[in-house]
Amino acid sequence: MHESDAGLLAPGRAGSAAEAATGDHAFLRALLDAEAALTRAQAVRGLAPAGAGRAVTGAAEAGSFDVRELALRARSGGNPVIPLVAALSAAVDEDVRPFVHRGATSQDILDTAAMLVASRTLGIVLDDLGRTADALERLAAAHRDTPMPGRTLTQHAVPTTFGLKAAGWRALVLDARDRLRAVRGALPVQLGGAAGTLAAFSDGGDAAGPDLVAAYAGELGLAEPLLPWHTLRTPVADLAGALAFTAGALGKAAADVLTLSRTEIGELAEGSGGGSSAMPHKANPVRATLIAAAARRAPGQAATLYGSLTAEDERPAGAWHAEWEPLRDLLRLVGGAARDAAELTEGLRVFPPAMRNHLGTTGGLIVSERLAAVAAGRVGPARAKEILTGAARLARDEGRPLAEVLAVEPAFDGLDLAELTDPARYTGCAGLLTDRALERR
Amino acid sequence: MHESDAGLLAPGRAGSAAEAATGDHAFLRALLDAEAALTRAQAVRGLAPAGAGRAVTGAAEAGSFDVRELALRARSGGNPVIPLVAALSAAVDEDVRPFVHRGATSQDILDTAAMLVASRTLGIVLDDLGRTADALERLAAAHRDTPMPGRTLTQHAVPTTFGLKAAGWRALVLDARDRLRAVRGALPVQLGGAAGTLAAFSDGGDAAGPDLVAAYAGELGLAEPLLPWHTLRTPVADLAGALAFTAGALGKAAADVLTLSRTEIGELAEGSGGGSSAMPHKANPVRATLIAAAARRAPGQAATLYGSLTAEDERPAGAWHAEWEPLRDLLRLVGGAARDAAELTEGLRVFPPAMRNHLGTTGGLIVSERLAAVAAGRVGPARAKEILTGAARLARDEGRPLAEVLAVEPAFDGLDLAELTDPARYTGCAGLLTDRALERR
Amino acid sequence: MHESDAGLLAPGRAGSAAEAATGDHAFLRALLDAEAALTRAQAVRGLAPAGAGRAVTGAAEAGSFDVRELALRARSGGNPVIPLVAALSAAVDEDVRPFVHRGATSQDILDTAAMLVASRTLGIVLDDLGRTADALERLAAAHRDTPMPGRTLTQHAVPTTFGLKAAGWRALVLDARDRLRAVRGALPVQLGGAAGTLAAFSDGGDAAGPDLVAAYAGELGLAEPLLPWHTLRTPVADLAGALAFTAGALGKAAADVLTLSRTEIGELAEGSGGGSSAMPHKANPVRATLIAAAARRAPGQAATLYGSLTAEDERPAGAWHAEWEPLRDLLRLVGGAARDAAELTEGLRVFPPAMRNHLGTTGGLIVSERLAAVAAGRVGPARAKEILTGAARLARDEGRPLAEVLAVEPAFDGLDLAELTDPARYTGCAGLLTDRALERR
Amino acid sequence: MHESDAGLLAPGRAGSAAEAATGDHAFLRALLDAEAALTRAQAVRGLAPAGAGRAVTGAAEAGSFDVRELALRARSGGNPVIPLVAALSAAVDEDVRPFVHRGATSQDILDTAAMLVASRTLGIVLDDLGRTADALERLAAAHRDTPMPGRTLTQHAVPTTFGLKAAGWRALVLDARDRLRAVRGALPVQLGGAAGTLAAFSDGGDAAGPDLVAAYAGELGLAEPLLPWHTLRTPVADLAGALAFTAGALGKAAADVLTLSRTEIGELAEGSGGGSSAMPHKANPVRATLIAAAARRAPGQAATLYGSLTAEDERPAGAWHAEWEPLRDLLRLVGGAARDAAELTEGLRVFPPAMRNHLGTTGGLIVSERLAAVAAGRVGPARAKEILTGAARLARDEGRPLAEVLAVEPAFDGLDLAELTDPARYTGCAGLLTDRALERR
Repeated sequence: MHESDAGLLAPGRAGSAAEAATGDHAFLRALLDAEAALTRAQAVRGLAPAGAGRAVTGAAEAGSFDVRELALRARSGGNPVIPLVAALSAAVDEDVRPFVHRGATSQDILDTAAMLVASRTLGIVLDDLGRTADALERLAAAHRDTPMPGRTLTQHAVPTTFGLKAAGWRALVLDARDRLRAVRGALPVQLGGAAGTLAAFSDGGDAAGPDLVAAYAGELGLAEPLLPWHTLRTPVADLAGALAFTAGALGKAAADVLTLSRTEIGELAEGSGGGSSAMPHKANPVRATLIAAAARRAPGQAATLYGSLTAEDERPAGAWHAEWEPLRDLLRLVGGAARDAAELTEGLRVFPPAMRNHLGTTGGLIVSERLAAVAAGRVGPARAKEILTGAARLARDEGRPLAEVLAVEPAFDGLDLAELTDPARYTGCAGLLTDRALERR
Repeated sequence: MHESDAGLLAPGRAGSAAEAATGDHAFLRALLDAEAALTRAQAVRGLAPAGAGRAVTGAAEAGSFDVRELALRARSGGNPVIPLVAALSAAVDEDVRPFVHRGATSQDILDTAAMLVASRTLGIVLDDLGRTADALERLAAAHRDTPMPGRTLTQHAVPTTFGLKAAGWRALVLDARDRLRAVRGALPVQLGGAAGTLAAFSDGGDAAGPDLVAAYAGELGLAEPLLPWHTLRTPVADLAGALAFTAGALGKAAADVLTLSRTEIGELAEGSGGGSSAMPHKANPVRATLIAAAARRAPGQAATLYGSLTAEDERPAGAWHAEWEPLRDLLRLVGGAARDAAELTEGLRVFPPAMRNHLGTTGGLIVSERLAAVAAGRVGPARAKEILTGAARLARDEGRPLAEVLAVEPAFDGLDLAELTDPARYTGCAGLLTDRALERR
Repeated sequence: MHESDAGLLAPGRAGSAAEAATGDHAFLRALLDAEAALTRAQAVRGLAPAGAGRAVTGAAEAGSFDVRELALRARSGGNPVIPLVAALSAAVDEDVRPFVHRGATSQDILDTAAMLVASRTLGIVLDDLGRTADALERLAAAHRDTPMPGRTLTQHAVPTTFGLKAAGWRALVLDARDRLRAVRGALPVQLGGAAGTLAAFSDGGDAAGPDLVAAYAGELGLAEPLLPWHTLRTPVADLAGALAFTAGALGKAAADVLTLSRTEIGELAEGSGGGSSAMPHKANPVRATLIAAAARRAPGQAATLYGSLTAEDERPAGAWHAEWEPLRDLLRLVGGAARDAAELTEGLRVFPPAMRNHLGTTGGLIVSERLAAVAAGRVGPARAKEILTGAARLARDEGRPLAEVLAVEPAFDGLDLAELTDPARYTGCAGLLTDRALERR
Repeated sequence: MHESDAGLLAPGRAGSAAEAATGDHAFLRALLDAEAALTRAQAVRGLAPAGAGRAVTGAAEAGSFDVRELALRARSGGNPVIPLVAALSAAVDEDVRPFVHRGATSQDILDTAAMLVASRTLGIVLDDLGRTADALERLAAAHRDTPMPGRTLTQHAVPTTFGLKAAGWRALVLDARDRLRAVRGALPVQLGGAAGTLAAFSDGGDAAGPDLVAAYAGELGLAEPLLPWHTLRTPVADLAGALAFTAGALGKAAADVLTLSRTEIGELAEGSGGGSSAMPHKANPVRATLIAAAARRAPGQAATLYGSLTAEDERPAGAWHAEWEPLRDLLRLVGGAARDAAELTEGLRVFPPAMRNHLGTTGGLIVSERLAAVAAGRVGPARAKEILTGAARLARDEGRPLAEVLAVEPAFDGLDLAELTDPARYTGCAGLLTDRALERR
């Protein structure tokens, strides 16, 4: 017990379905699933007695094996499959033993198990992204015409709407969903034997190896690879990219929530903020914080996985071993962040009055672009910029509304400055863009 | 001149077409292309006089602008578009000036230019990957049945073929090609205006903004985005992933070439090795070395780009600025590596006799898997492993061929040990797998 | 010209002294300095005629060599020293040629040049950090007692002072300075010859090699290494760590400036904000933005350099080549960020009234910790927390000051609630801590 | 149990002392140590009754708390200290409760605990590095004069000695030791209260806060920080750098062992190689493989920690949370790698005959540098290079020893070519350098 980790440092994932799907126990189950399916596939292809598949499947119960003992015994060979095969063999009758792990190499089983774990976890992630996209769709539709300050380089720029912002978050979530779905659909079994030639199966005829790979894929519901991919790590790199993307995509929304729920801004709030150990009044944006933390961590782990593409020989000394924990970590970071994103977006509180109020903070300067364009049509862009810059300075320094300052400016003679400086009337195509973005399913 | 870099530290890319396509001059050209296309698109949509498009296009000649001066003037606003717009405006007649950069924000132009540069550079990269894939196809076909040691964790495992190895490299190259092609086909223009609402165009009616975006995309041959993506950085993240993948995919082949051209191994050699400043005899695998260096560098830059997904607000303070050089660097690293990979694979020398010779290095132990399987069928796997482990030790310690040691072993009675221990007869499905892999176009 | 980069994508460094110190021209000069010093050192140690040192030094004028041509010719051998040696040899009389690059390998010269460039650039960086620390000292002293909201997880927590905040930034700057100074003082020359044995010098007696290394170090003002470090990359890794630290340290201050200069917060502003191409009123925090961008980029480049520690053999095929541009990039990122930090801190405008105003935003809740402590002493911590949480909710919901809400609460009977809820009287040891921090030189 | 990880994917660390020192249980113990020490320190400084310190210390037994439950309850506030304080408070008498966690914020406790864990783990790492350095010292001394090929860019360059190589590895290990020791000695406690002002302690007089910090540091044997460092993350960044350095330093030795134990090279072998699940003869370099994997992973995690330097405000929303697991992971990667390095170097088998044999592989070309130098002294460097390049080609193509080819070359008239081409007589200053390097303690 004392050697085990139970998520104490990982509130982002603790208790999530993704955590359960990626734990040592889940990996053990996947390793056993891979071994059992391999024997069953051989039985299907006539390379093993029918009973062997059943016997190994029966013995391959995760509950019968001690994860910690396997972990310790993995030291001598450098991977957990070696002791697992020994233990699994010991758990079946002697006549079945030759058909346990027959013709496979450790990497066949571990890679296949990793793909199973990835596939199962991505199922959970996709569900949470679906919930998130739905919640964002509701928010975007509800706030299609809720104006708020558009902010660039931290400063008010021109107005936008919260609907467009939420629609943008949703677009990223759908981008992540599409990438994860595509990667998930292509996750392959691994089967190549000692050096990727399927040599141990070639006695059954030239095509016996590839046929077995197809049967193996069929048993597990994974894709059939064109080649053994012990050192052709496309599936792992694709996972790395799609997962890092997802973490970052959710991180964008979290960054905005953190900004917009600042005490001074208060345009958004998490449904139930986190408490503090010292300050009873605090309601921290905890979900957004944990997502932000995941987004900070994912790129480094993805970089490690991209680096493992440079895997020498037929099976590498280190590049492969360096993948296991970072891949799991990425799955967990994204699994936790997707859960948090669903909770965050489903409970997000939006405060249109605060948004509206902030549109006035700059006394109309937030529509200076519009005014500059109008003036430019009358006095040319150079003079227009000059007028606006001066008026902006005056408005700011004297705390007067821009409309009032400009009222005496000939360039705006005869125009309705109240309307021209109304931020709510300068949200451009925000509504239309929101509609279009929500049409995407 | 003294402030300029000309590739002194970058032999991997110096003189390459990708270098020319990503240099400051190429970026300047792309920025100007983006500005000119924007005015033309407005003319097409009736938002500017027809002549304005022509005038801006005529003025937007890269040769007329001083890159260094723009770089220095970019300091005050933090990006080069601001001074470029000033310079471009100064280069057109006064009546055209209102239509220079009209309604756009700096990021519209810089992002669009980056996509143009990426698209152009990927065209070059795809050509070089095509050359590489062709060369590998020839190598794989020619060496379909050339046996060589399969190596795992640095040690001889079981035999494989050089054909299968080359086919595997090619599979990675095709994977890279597919990913780059898909990303390239989706590279979008950027146009959103100050905060992504297209507000400056909304006077032309609700749909004027989106229609303009479509026209803009049409002018430049880039994709039309669903939303402005100032802080929805999918295109950049997709580039990061596909480029890091490509660097790693080429890095895998380079890692193998480096290993197999070691002085003691000598199974491969670059067509023309690089010289040494001190040792006249040396023929270094320089192309593989430079590819390996690119593969080491790409993940860190990709990580930075994935990190920039967390871009707050409507346009961010730092996340965007952090993308420019890493994206260019990735394009260059991959551009250089793809050129080197084409040269490397087209000139690669293969030495089948050395491969054949090494198959005998372990005195037959390289087929111990096969022997173990045969023995297991006769005496069970446990006893078979015991026999083989003992025989292997004896063969190694006494320097005797494994066939000779096993000749006295009852478990192998009556079998043709010469054939069973011939590595060339234990390449499994290597030939078939090679054929299948080469069918992929 | 068209192949050269002149900083168009790099406003963070364009025009800085660090840029000039790290450009191709500066590297060329350092390479030539290294070659010339090597010949001079040999002359000093009697391994070359005295005139050879003078002749090579005379010929080693950077202006005489064409950077671009060297870059292109570096392709065949994979590094620029090979063509440089050829060019330098051609530039001296025939009798001097044997003493050009004598006994050295390319890496001796390139590594030494990189250390020279690093040393020169760090000198500039240290000056800018000194300016920054001085500016922060003035700010911290001036605002020792300027109260402002302390913010945690984006929410007001308890009051702090701007003096303490500035003192904290300064502490990081001094930490960076100390690390860079220590690394700079240890930057060694490189000299080992082809495989690090100094074999080419061993004819001069056993100690001739090490003595030459000492003389070489003396000529260049760099440290004498204990061993050739072709694959013992401590100096490069130390640079990576210290530079990544510095970027992050400055990034912390930039992050705070970006937050505190938000339109809604406005407690800080850059001396001269950057303009916008579209919005005349905007004053963007450009210096902070560019520093933030550098801080986002440095970790990925440092990771590449740490990865290059795993350099196989006596000189590696790729790990070394992967260092050159990332090391230069880190020097430039930090060089640019240090310049921006000096400008930023020297010009930073502080708005105590805004800070003071925000202390009231929560209606006294910002001192709830204090009230909870006082109440806990009277009614126990559980009841105290309960009271405060309720009062906080009431104060927030009804928009009433906390002092007023608590006035009817028996737990606070007889206490001066006005004083207890005055944020300016609850800045704790901020002043004392500021004083202590400023004592550090 | 099913939610716990027990090292199944982590053979590099499974069962190591560093694993035990960094597990959830160890963190729990450190958190409790931190809480207990805080109360004791307050008792020492008169801020709490003497009995409170004893009571909290007595209650703070790790065995009494459920790690998993704490992990799950950490979700709502985002860190495990909040539920731990609740549980610890519940475990003491009511009169003691006000003195549990009094005046502290969660980050005070978690940061302090992390420093305790780091300090304890680094003690283990330093022991293993000491063992490794000792083993390398013995190897270097024993093989001071064992010649072997020096290899550069994968090719034989000039001879070196295994003594020098081992001395180089040791130099890196000592560099790592020095950096870890320095960092370890400076690891500070964290104590600042809600926003780093020590406000909760300021009622005890201005200096009460700093005095308490000193007492707190004294209780735990950690350093006293100059300022609270909630967002001044120097200690974490320093750990990141020193740990990434150590992983890379060990990775260099592992890379060499992997190369030199290749089947074709066989100059080194691990004491007890790892077995294979399929091939009975294999003896894999498992220790080196696991170290290599750690070296591949460390830079990405260090990059995340350097990235967390940009921590906004008084306590950040994400940057801090992103540190916890990467820091632990780095400690574990290095802890495991240091154990493996000790085992590897203590058991490393060296095969001088194989080294000697390979010196002859190039037929004398390995000393071409020497011959070129000798010839250059007679006929000038240009002509000498020409002669050697031609002779090298002839020797390689015809399989003749270089001495024989050169025997007819006038430039070598009268010289003892057998001696000049003897690789063992061209190891330069390798012996002297080894001696010097071993003097370092």
